[in-house]
Amino acid sequence: MAKWIYLYDEFGKVEKLARGSWDGIKAIVGGKGAGLLDMTRAGVPVPPFFTVTTMACNAYQSAGKFPAGMWSETLKSLKAIEKATGKKFGDPKNPLLVSCRSGAKFSMPGMMETILNIGLTDEVVEGIITATGNARFAWDSYRRLIEMFGTVVMNVADEAFEHPLAEYKEKKGYKLDIEMRAEDWKEIVGNYKQVYKQETGKDFPQDPYNQLSLAIEAVFKSWNGKRAVAYRRKEGISDSLGTAVNICTMVFGNMGEDSATGVAFTRNPSTGEKKMMGEFLLNAQGEDVVAGIRNTEPIAHLKKYMPRSYNQFMKITERLERHYKEMQDVEFTVEHGKLWMLQTRNGKRTAKAAVKIAVDMAKEGLITREQAILRITPDHVDALLHPQFDDSAMKQAENAGKFFARGVNASPGAAVGQVYFEADTAEKMAKESHQQVIMVRPFTKPDDVHGMIASKGVVTSEGGATSHAAVVARQFGIPCVVGASGVHIDLENKTMVANGITVNEGDWISVDGASGRVFVGKIPTIEPTLEQQTELMTLLKWADEVCAHKNIRKGYPSTGLQVWANADYPKDAQRARAYGAVGIGLCRTEHMFFETSRLPIVQKMILAKTSEARVEALNQLLPYQRKDFDGLFEAMDGYPVIIRLIDPPLHEFMPDEEKLLEEVITLRVKGETQGLKEKESLLSAVRIMRESNPMLGLRGVRLSIAMPEIVEMQVRAIFEAAADCVKRGIKAKPEIMIPLVGTVKELEWIQPRLESIAKKVMQEKEIKFKHKFGTMIEVPRAALTAHRVAEKAEFFSFGTNDLTQMTFAYSRDDAERNFLVTYQEQGILEKNPFQTIDREGVGELMRWAIKDGRATRPELEVGICGEHGGDPDSIEWCHLIGNNYVSCSPFRVPVARLAAAHAALKHKNK
Amino acid sequence: MAKWIYLYDEFGKVEKLARGSWDGIKAIVGGKGAGLLDMTRAGVPVPPFFTVTTMACNAYQSAGKFPAGMWSETLKSLKAIEKATGKKFGDPKNPLLVSCRSGAKFSMPGMMETILNIGLTDEVVEGIITATGNARFAWDSYRRLIEMFGTVVMNVADEAFEHPLAEYKEKKGYKLDIEMRAEDWKEIVGNYKQVYKQETGKDFPQDPYNQLSLAIEAVFKSWNGKRAVAYRRKEGISDSLGTAVNICTMVFGNMGEDSATGVAFTRNPSTGEKKMMGEFLLNAQGEDVVAGIRNTEPIAHLKKYMPRSYNQFMKITERLERHYKEMQDVEFTVEHGKLWMLQTRNGKRTAKAAVKIAVDMAKEGLITREQAILRITPDHVDALLHPQFDDSAMKQAENAGKFFARGVNASPGAAVGQVYFEADTAEKMAKESHQQVIMVRPFTKPDDVHGMIASKGVVTSEGGATSHAAVVARQFGIPCVVGASGVHIDLENKTMVANGITVNEGDWISVDGASGRVFVGKIPTIEPTLEQQTELMTLLKWADEVCAHKNIRKGYPSTGLQVWANADYPKDAQRARAYGAVGIGLCRTEHMFFETSRLPIVQKMILAKTSEARVEALNQLLPYQRKDFDGLFEAMDGYPVIIRLIDPPLHEFMPDEEKLLEEVITLRVKGETQGLKEKESLLSAVRIMRESNPMLGLRGVRLSIAMPEIVEMQVRAIFEAAADCVKRGIKAKPEIMIPLVGTVKELEWIQPRLESIAKKVMQEKEIKFKHKFGTMIEVPRAALTAHRVAEKAEFFSFGTNDLTQMTFAYSRDDAERNFLVTYQEQGILEKNPFQTIDREGVGELMRWAIKDGRATRPELEVGICGEHGGDPDSIEWCHLIGNNYVSCSPFRVPVARLAAAHAALKHKNK
Repeated sequence: MAKWIYLYDEFGKVEKLARGSWDGIKAIVGGKGAGLLDMTRAGVPVPPFFTVTTMACNAYQSAGKFPAGMWSETLKSLKAIEKATGKKFGDPKNPLLVSCRSGAKFSMPGMMETILNIGLTDEVVEGIITATGNARFAWDSYRRLIEMFGTVVMNVADEAFEHPLAEYKEKKGYKLDIEMRAEDWKEIVGNYKQVYKQETGKDFPQDPYNQLSLAIEAVFKSWNGKRAVAYRRKEGISDSLGTAVNICTMVFGNMGEDSATGVAFTRNPSTGEKKMMGEFLLNAQGEDVVAGIRNTEPIAHLKKYMPRSYNQFMKITERLERHYKEMQDVEFTVEHGKLWMLQTRNGKRTAKAAVKIAVDMAKEGLITREQAILRITPDHVDALLHPQFDDSAMKQAENAGKFFARGVNASPGAAVGQVYFEADTAEKMAKESHQQVIMVRPFTKPDDVHGMIASKGVVTSEGGATSHAAVVARQFGIPCVVGASGVHIDLENKTMVANGITVNEGDWISVDGASGRVFVGKIPTIEPTLEQQTELMTLLKWADEVCAHKNIRKGYPSTGLQVWANADYPKDAQRARAYGAVGIGLCRTEHMFFETSRLPIVQKMILAKTSEARVEALNQLLPYQRKDFDGLFEAMDGYPVIIRLIDPPLHEFMPDEEKLLEEVITLRVKGETQGLKEKESLLSAVRIMRESNPMLGLRGVRLSIAMPEIVEMQVRAIFEAAADCVKRGIKAKPEIMIPLVGTVKELEWIQPRLESIAKKVMQEKEIKFKHKFGTMIEVPRAALTAHRVAEKAEFFSFGTNDLTQMTFAYSRDDAERNFLVTYQEQGILEKNPFQTIDREGVGELMRWAIKDGRATRPELEVGICGEHGGDPDSIEWCHLIGNNYVSCSPFRVPVARLAAAHAALKHKNK
Repeated sequence: MAKWIYLYDEFGKVEKLARGSWDGIKAIVGGKGAGLLDMTRAGVPVPPFFTVTTMACNAYQSAGKFPAGMWSETLKSLKAIEKATGKKFGDPKNPLLVSCRSGAKFSMPGMMETILNIGLTDEVVEGIITATGNARFAWDSYRRLIEMFGTVVMNVADEAFEHPLAEYKEKKGYKLDIEMRAEDWKEIVGNYKQVYKQETGKDFPQDPYNQLSLAIEAVFKSWNGKRAVAYRRKEGISDSLGTAVNICTMVFGNMGEDSATGVAFTRNPSTGEKKMMGEFLLNAQGEDVVAGIRNTEPIAHLKKYMPRSYNQFMKITERLERHYKEMQDVEFTVEHGKLWMLQTRNGKRTAKAAVKIAVDMAKEGLITREQAILRITPDHVDALLHPQFDDSAMKQAENAGKFFARGVNASPGAAVGQVYFEADTAEKMAKESHQQVIMVRPFTKPDDVHGMIASKGVVTSEGGATSHAAVVARQFGIPCVVGASGVHIDLENKTMVANGITVNEGDWISVDGASGRVFVGKIPTIEPTLEQQTELMTLLKWADEVCAHKNIRKGYPSTGLQVWANADYPKDAQRARAYGAVGIGLCRTEHMFFETSRLPIVQKMILAKTSEARVEALNQLLPYQRKDFDGLFEAMDGYPVIIRLIDPPLHEFMPDEEKLLEEVITLRVKGETQGLKEKESLLSAVRIMRESNPMLGLRGVRLSIAMPEIVEMQVRAIFEAAADCVKRGIKAKPEIMIPLVGTVKELEWIQPRLESIAKKVMQEKEIKFKHKFGTMIEVPRAALTAHRVAEKAEFFSFGTNDLTQMTFAYSRDDAERNFLVTYQEQGILEKNPFQTIDREGVGELMRWAIKDGRATRPELEVGICGEHGGDPDSIEWCHLIGNNYVSCSPFRVPVARLAAAHAALKHKNK
């Protein structure tokens, strides 16, 4: 004969039927039922319950009635519960009340029904009042039953119950339910019973068994309710699974001074400290604890009132933590001195607590190090490394009317500073007046970088998450909000307006890069560093060990990913090392050209009419570059440093064409000749350099072939610096990266020229050291012909920003503003491909390039230095396709180390 | 015993040794020897000769001397020649002279040695004078022998002989060799013999056998000469092949009135007419015919003087044509009434002749139709279809100082017209004043197109072969020279200067698009059309039949390529049909928007603030578009018409930003308020639309998703027009092409919307007809994910212009100017990838897209509509990867039809 119901202590039977499979168990008794049975088996005092199986549900669906034997099993199970609790269903003296809840194999939150307080009748409610002395609670519970039963079982519209309550409260002048007294609820119960009769044509059932039978049937029916069916369609859940129904004893902590109720965390959810944290109320119900009407007491005080229950509680929670191997968030009730655990679940916690708990548990032997690593999300790590505002302080500011604007949360962290609208002023104020500066611009350009670097935060009114401002800000770990489109910036008058507030130059604002919000005034911040966070340091060390494991993945390379950093300056490299980077994956040499002291020389070099004049200007730049590289090698002693030769088009180093045009036209119209000639000739030079699509223009290796003097100087500077370092005992490992290569012939042209300079410098300095020449893979054609490119290139580094631009034909500078947001909203793009690698298109191209490149050069070193190098999903892809390393902003290095370990563990030996 | 020499009549022996392989024959007796033997076998009277084999050469190289038996074979062979000619080597009465020429398996032009007139001595020269009565010729021949022998055999420096001759001429006051008389040459012979003795320490050998032996040895040695070795290295020719040596009887047409010499073509090389064309001189040597000192007579006159020789010559040349199955260019000499054929080779001819000869020969059964097709190059066809200048007329103009400038030959053909510097003026002058106009601009933009279309020719001072001007000009078959960088255009004063000549507005110039040259004044042109060229029509019909053959290639599709055309207007479509296109592969709808009458409505539509206002403007455009499409369907009755929905970014339809800025600043500085507001707001609207990289910006399907109203109007116009056509009996076959797709989700978003409009229109019109929805493949990601894109797209059309831009990351608008020329010069790019598909990168992507797309949709229709669709090399690639058709400018259709047939024949059943 079929068995339709399992009692709370029948975990073993279900397990046997499911042949030990947790999935099978859930298929029979649903997720919730499985959890309750499991807890009970673990010896946790859960209020007795029984579960009607999904098979019963399915049988009901096809027959339209309970299957034969189910109801008698229900009655039998109810008897067992009565025996366990010492209460009786429908008995006014010592009434058993139950809840009736759905619970399918897969969680379908809010899709199906729950009915509480089943068993309450006109008679029983009086019994409860006697037992608890709490008439208000009793009447409130009763009215809830009528309402739930009416709406769920009898399909009465919600409004039918809501209206009379609202009217009653208005009449009484109450605003909140809390103001309702016992007699008020009693009157409402009367009203509700009338409503029930009016809407259903029947009296509210006074037979508890009748209530229960109808409730179970209602849950069954809800499986085929509109909402549930739609949800299953969307999530791809099979209609044939059916739902289980859990009938649980309701317990009450307001049954007198020998009763209590409380909530607790098994560890401190804020700090992660291994110490129970919680609160309780004597003679109260759960809602009272949460509502904060009465002052709760700390959980430790429970020992004083009910030592036995307290000790039992401490033992149980410890057991629960061991059972679930996770910090638990528990609810409990003591009813007449008997402890019941109502719920246990993995507790929510701060990032800090998450890391400490994971590391502690691994040290305690509760979980493995690998499990500890997998429990921490990249977001946890990220949150721990950026200055933050206190949530409550932000709320306060908002309440005080200090909210100014909202934009795209481009770079996390909190910044407080004085507003400046120009890069030069921003830099000057920061450096000379030692002010905390927030730079505000409509958008930023490469020649704004010095101002951005000097600032604590950046705000723009235009651009998206991968605009210039956003990219640079993330690179330098500067909190940044971009595209705050409600902000009107008046550069001329140095002022901005939003939300009715005017901010002038020098005014203080607070920028929350994590949420994309800007406030006026100062909000205090907290500034964490990695070194201070012992547990995080430990966890990341474990993560590194996972990746260094020789057999973490099959095929080449057999270890997991290394994490390198993108760093242009020695101080970035130092931070990269401190954050655990084991190489520089990208040093952009052009930032060095933009520095105020160098830009005039750079412009002279560009405008040079002869190769000699160009070389002369370059010779002036050489010592600067050598010094830059010297500092990098010193900081990275023993670790590789990939230096990318000059990449951007030369016009980026020139004055703005439009501004020049304005000046020239103004002079012309005014008839002024003073300086006109010079401006005109500069304008004409800038115009010649103009390109229709600079992103696809004369830059990278193309520029180097047109004008080899620049990269020749750079390679000389690199090797002179490296040689000097090696001489003073520093292990310099330079790797020269040639950008924007599309065909191996470009490398065949330029690489021998540069190699001969490298050789010459080493001869001059009478020293030899290892070095590499390699290329960015950022042009689709280079990826497609990787086997040819690898004939010359000793390493590949995916420039996924450009590779994404070209593969999608999306201009990064325009796309977000113009259509990328719409595309995501419309579901045309699942994710922003500039943030997360598009595996289907760009990712496949990368996979091909690695396979094809290593066919030519099996030991080919492969990395990624685009923005994606710090994105966990993209890091996973890099692991899967066989990268040797990912390189990202120093600030993202800890996140990337964790993500690399996650990828390695998730795809172990695959 | 080894055989080292083959006599002129021993072709059979060589053939046997080589087992019938022509390659093997060439390996034994060299290319030249093989040719001579073959001619002799064919019964052609070639002056008797013998060939020393490459084996003899190799034996000489290893032993350092002639192999045993070789010299005795030489003497024996010489005897055979003496017998055949009736002359005797070294006999002053009737002397046999021979030439000694190298001839390796592979032609190595100019790398090895030749010595003529061997056998001349002091005695023999007198005998020649007696025999010919031509002392000047005899002494000249003798001095040539001494000079060649001295330099080639004895390694005397050229200067040693050149100096005395120069001195002598100076002394005599001669400028040219022609002025030298017999006694002058006789004196030179004396001088040369002295030089010879002085330089070599020996007398010039008076033993003819000694001369011959040394000459053969010198040719052997020249195989290992510096130049020859370097050439072989470069060309990858093996050193071990060795060279053969050909010893040929020298014959003389200046032996009296029974001797003659001449040259002839077996058919007319200018027109292709099947009629011998040539000229001869009695009692003359070959040089006299070429030099034009004496008036030659037409070949037909030979019949009068020597009817036997004439008849023999006619028979021989006919046999040669049949033997080589090609029009022959022959040289002959009659010596004492005996006809000798000195040379026969395939004759050079004009494009017109090439086509007529090929078609005639096929009709004569001399060659197959397939051979006829393969003999005509795409350049032949191209040359026949563009107006041309007469070469001599151009030369005349150049001599008259009318050469103005040279640029890139962007679009072939000749144009004569009056210069105008603005599109509007150009259009006005052409339309209203019915002038022939040449439009001259620094460069062109889309809003110049109306002026270009109205012009006979276009000249720009900037841009390359794929600049806007070049592309548009080719599309419309307008002769065009771009990047004429020496031309200084002064737009303000409407004048241009180059080569010291000033050209004003309205002046006449002549533009030769084929050579890239510009002249001042008018040069007369010839304007051919396809219809007039019967043979070309026939040839192309045969080409089409080849492609239509069901089994021309294996796999899908099994036929060869169809040729479709890109056409935006009905008149283009008519031309496309006349030129043999069987479909429209690309109708660009945006050109329709640029027309003067429509542009204001388009701008209103763009600036519309609400969807309603936009739809209102679009409704005004609808009738225009419907009319455009109606005309296209009518012209293409029964053939498919692919219409591409709007593609360019909207800012292309707006006024120029820089010009607006100038106007605004000028008004501001002058303090004028009149119209300032309007200009400012227009400027700000234009600025908002500005993109950093418009090529990667908001255009194509992205624009359609942002602003679906435009394409909704377009689809309505298309289907309304098609329905109207079908109703009046025209078979309209519309195919809607969605541009710039990068992910199938874009199609999933837009296609159903458009399909529902199509359906609605067909319901409204109560008619149904077949149609397709498809996409351009121009974004690399679309190619990479073709299997997904093909889920929605019913056809693919490769937009190889954009695909090349993205795959290489080359901006077409900038690349040629900035680095593409350098790249080709430096060998980094073999070909301009915008002209010829880059097979390694872009081509592989195309191949993948077809394979991947047909995996989803086996019947997928695939074409190409980029510039490459008219390029023969690219057409071959399209054939190889399985395209159904190529689409190109109507003017390129004949070329493409031929190229398609070539591809099919070259890769038959592969």
